Amino acid sequence: MHTSALHGSLEDEALSSMNFLNEIAQRFPDAVSFAPGRPFEGFWDTSLVHDYLRRFERYLREDKGFDEDQVRRTLLQYGRTKGIVHELVARHLEVDEGIVVDPEAVVVTVGCQEAMFLVLRALRSDERDVVLTVSPRYVGLTGAARLVDMPVLEVEGGPRGVDLESLTAVVRDARARGLRPRACYLVTDFSNPSGVSLDLETRHALLELAEREDLLLLEDNPYGYFSADGVRLPTLKALDERRRVIYLGSFAKTGLPGARIGYVVADQSVADAGGGIGPLADQLSKIKSMVTVNTSPIAQAVIGGKLLTHGCDLYGANEREIAVYRGNLERLLAGLERHFPPGGGTGVRWNVPRGGFFLVVTVPFEADEKLLETSARDYGVLWTPMCYFSSDPEAARQIRLSYSLVTGNQIDLGLERFAALVTQRLG
Amino acid sequence: MHTSALHGSLEDEALSSMNFLNEIAQRFPDAVSFAPGRPFEGFWDTSLVHDYLRRFERYLREDKGFDEDQVRRTLLQYGRTKGIVHELVARHLEVDEGIVVDPEAVVVTVGCQEAMFLVLRALRSDERDVVLTVSPRYVGLTGAARLVDMPVLEVEGGPRGVDLESLTAVVRDARARGLRPRACYLVTDFSNPSGVSLDLETRHALLELAEREDLLLLEDNPYGYFSADGVRLPTLKALDERRRVIYLGSFAKTGLPGARIGYVVADQSVADAGGGIGPLADQLSKIKSMVTVNTSPIAQAVIGGKLLTHGCDLYGANEREIAVYRGNLERLLAGLERHFPPGGGTGVRWNVPRGGFFLVVTVPFEADEKLLETSARDYGVLWTPMCYFSSDPEAARQIRLSYSLVTGNQIDLGLERFAALVTQRLG
Repeated sequence: MHTSALHGSLEDEALSSMNFLNEIAQRFPDAVSFAPGRPFEGFWDTSLVHDYLRRFERYLREDKGFDEDQVRRTLLQYGRTKGIVHELVARHLEVDEGIVVDPEAVVVTVGCQEAMFLVLRALRSDERDVVLTVSPRYVGLTGAARLVDMPVLEVEGGPRGVDLESLTAVVRDARARGLRPRACYLVTDFSNPSGVSLDLETRHALLELAEREDLLLLEDNPYGYFSADGVRLPTLKALDERRRVIYLGSFAKTGLPGARIGYVVADQSVADAGGGIGPLADQLSKIKSMVTVNTSPIAQAVIGGKLLTHGCDLYGANEREIAVYRGNLERLLAGLERHFPPGGGTGVRWNVPRGGFFLVVTVPFEADEKLLETSARDYGVLWTPMCYFSSDPEAARQIRLSYSLVTGNQIDLGLERFAALVTQRLG
Repeated sequence: MHTSALHGSLEDEALSSMNFLNEIAQRFPDAVSFAPGRPFEGFWDTSLVHDYLRRFERYLREDKGFDEDQVRRTLLQYGRTKGIVHELVARHLEVDEGIVVDPEAVVVTVGCQEAMFLVLRALRSDERDVVLTVSPRYVGLTGAARLVDMPVLEVEGGPRGVDLESLTAVVRDARARGLRPRACYLVTDFSNPSGVSLDLETRHALLELAEREDLLLLEDNPYGYFSADGVRLPTLKALDERRRVIYLGSFAKTGLPGARIGYVVADQSVADAGGGIGPLADQLSKIKSMVTVNTSPIAQAVIGGKLLTHGCDLYGANEREIAVYRGNLERLLAGLERHFPPGGGTGVRWNVPRGGFFLVVTVPFEADEKLLETSARDYGVLWTPMCYFSSDPEAARQIRLSYSLVTGNQIDLGLERFAALVTQRLG
C-alpha cells in the first residue's frame, strides 16, 4: 500500500511537521527543549488520581444521592454520550468565567481536539463550507479541518490577535467565490503559537463583526488561566449575548493532561427534520457517538474530582502553576535581554506575552527544519519553527519558545545554547 | 440553524434510531430490557479501578524500570499517540488468540469505535472508495462510514455469517461501476446483531477470497471470548498469513467499558511519499493525533492493570462472566421453547447462537418502532427492531434480544411480557 491510496491528510505537511518534531525530540533527549506545549509536572503525584476518583464517588453518593449500583454503573459502564461531568463543567464556567450555561449545552470530549473535530464535522456539510483561522494558526485546528476535507482560510492575526479588517475581507471574498465561511477559530488569550491576546475592545468588536457577517466564533481557551500579570479579561463566551460563540474548553493544562478531558459549549439552537429544537450540543453528541461513543467516565471522574476538590475554581487550583509560568516568562525575558541587548546589533527581537506558555522570537535568518536539526545536534537546544504555523514570509525567520515545562536552570542553559547558535549563524 | 445546514450524517436514520432506543429506555425505566449490548455488571466494584491503576504503576516501576518522574509522566502527561499498553495488548493477543504481532502495529484507541473511524478515514481517499459489510450490519460501522462520507455496500450474511458468493458479486459489481471496494467489515464470532459465527471452513475461504479479490478484512471481535459451549475457533487474524486482516479489538466487554479502551492491529506495510515504510498503524496514528491526540493514559492504565492482574489472559479473567452469559442464553432458549413450543402455531422462531450477547427472534408480524413503543408502554419489555440493521424484508419481522445485562428472573419476566405482546398481536 502507498499513502497516496489513503486519505489526503496523510500526505499533509502539518502532520509530517509534527512527526518531525517528535522524532527530533527522541533523537536528542539531552537537548533543552523549548518545544512542547505541555504543562508543568512538578506538583503532580499519581496519588492525586486516586484522591480525585474517591472525591467524585463521594459526590455521586452524597450530592447526587446515588446508591452503590448507580455509582458503579456511572463509573464503569457505558455512559451518557454528552458526559457525566457536564454539571461540574457548567459550575466551573460560572465560578471562573462568569459564563452561565445550561449543562445540556455541554459535550464532554476526549480532549479539546475531539471537540474541534466534532464542531468542524458538523459544520462541514458540503464542499462550499470553509473555516477561518487567524495566522499564525494552531495545527490542531488545521489538522481536524483536513480530516473532514474542509478548507482553512487564513485571517491576519497581527499585534491584536485578530485583524478585523482582514477577517471581514476574507469572509466577503469567500462568499463572492461561492464559499460558505461557517466559523472563525481563535485562541483569545495567550494564543498558541503567538502568545498574543485580544484586548477588550477587540473582543467586543469581534462579536459585533460575527453578528454582522453571520459567522460563528470558535473560541479555544487552553491558556487563559495562566495570566502572568494578574489581568483577566472576559472570554468571548462571557460577552456573547447572541450565541455567536462556540466555546472549546480543555482540562489538559488546568486539570491533568493524562485524563484527556475537554469539552465544548454549543448552546446555539438547531431545528431538526422532525421539528424538534435543541442545542447544537445534541447534534455534536450524535457525531461523537460515531467517533468515540462516550468519554471514559473514569477519566471524567478524575477531572470531576479535581473540580470538586477545588470548589470548581481552577484559578485557585492552579495558583502554584500560575506562579511557575510567570516566573519562567520573567526569566526567559530577562535572559533574552541579557543575550540580545537592545542595540546590540544581533537583530534578534521577541514579543512580550502577558501570560500563557509561548513566546515568539524573530531572528535575522531562516529558522527552518534544517536549522532545528543543527540546533538540536550541535547546540543541544530545541524549539519550534514558526513556518509550521504560517505561510507569512516573516514566519520563516521566527521561532516559538515554549516555557511551560522547563525549569529556571534549563531556561538559562537553553538560552546560552540558543545564543551560541545565533552567534554562529550571524558570524 | 437547521440540521440541513449541517453534515448529512445528522439526518441519517441510523443515528436517529439509536436516539429513539435511548429515549424509550429513559421513558420506561421499569421495563425489562433486552435492548442494550452492555456487559454484566454484577462482579464490578469501583475499588477495582484503584487496584488496576496500582498494578500498572508497579509494572512501570518493576518491569519497565521507570523512576518516579517517569511513572508520573507516563500516567499524567500527554503521551504516545499509539498508546502505552501496546506491549500488553500484544502479549494478550499471543496468550489468548495465538496472534503474534509487533506492538508497533497496535494503536490503542478510545474504544473500538475510534479504531473503526481511523481505519475508514484512512481508507476513504476519494468518492470511489466504498466499504462492504455483512447484513444485518453493525450500526457503529455504518455510522463511522457516514462520518467520512464513505458508502457502505451490503453483503448477504446468511446462516454462515458471510455469503462468499454474495461478497464476490458485490466486489465485482462495485468494480464494474468504477468503485473501489477497500475492505469488508464483519464480526467473526457471535455477531452483533445476529449472534451468528463463521465456521472454520468459511474463515479459511474468506481469507482466500480476500487475497484473490485484493480486499482487506476488518475483523471486529468484541464477543469472541463469550463462547457458551466452550468451542473457540481461531480468529481471522490468527489465520492471516498475508496481512489481509485489520483486527479491531475492544476491552469494553472483557475489560471495563468505563475505561473506553479499544485498539486496532494494522500490520500492513505502507510506503509514504518520503520513501519510508512502516505499518499502517503509523498512518492511523497520524489521523488519531487530529481526532483525540492520544488515549487517556489513566484509562489505559486501568486496562493495563487488569491485563497484568490476569497474566494477560482475558478468558481466565472473564470466567465468571462467561458462565453468566452461558446461563442466560440457556434460560432464554428454554423460556422461548416454553412460551413458543414447536408446532404451537405461533409462528415464532429464533436462532441458537453458540455464545455472545445476542439472539434473533422472528415473529409473524411487523416489529417496528411503533410496536416497540407499545411493547414498552403496555407490556413493560424492551428489545431492538432488526429493521435498524438491515433493509432485508425478513428483518422487518425480526427482533434482537440481548441477554448480557439481565438476571435470570428478568429473563423469565421479560419473556412472559414478550409472550403476552405476541399473543395480543396474533389474536
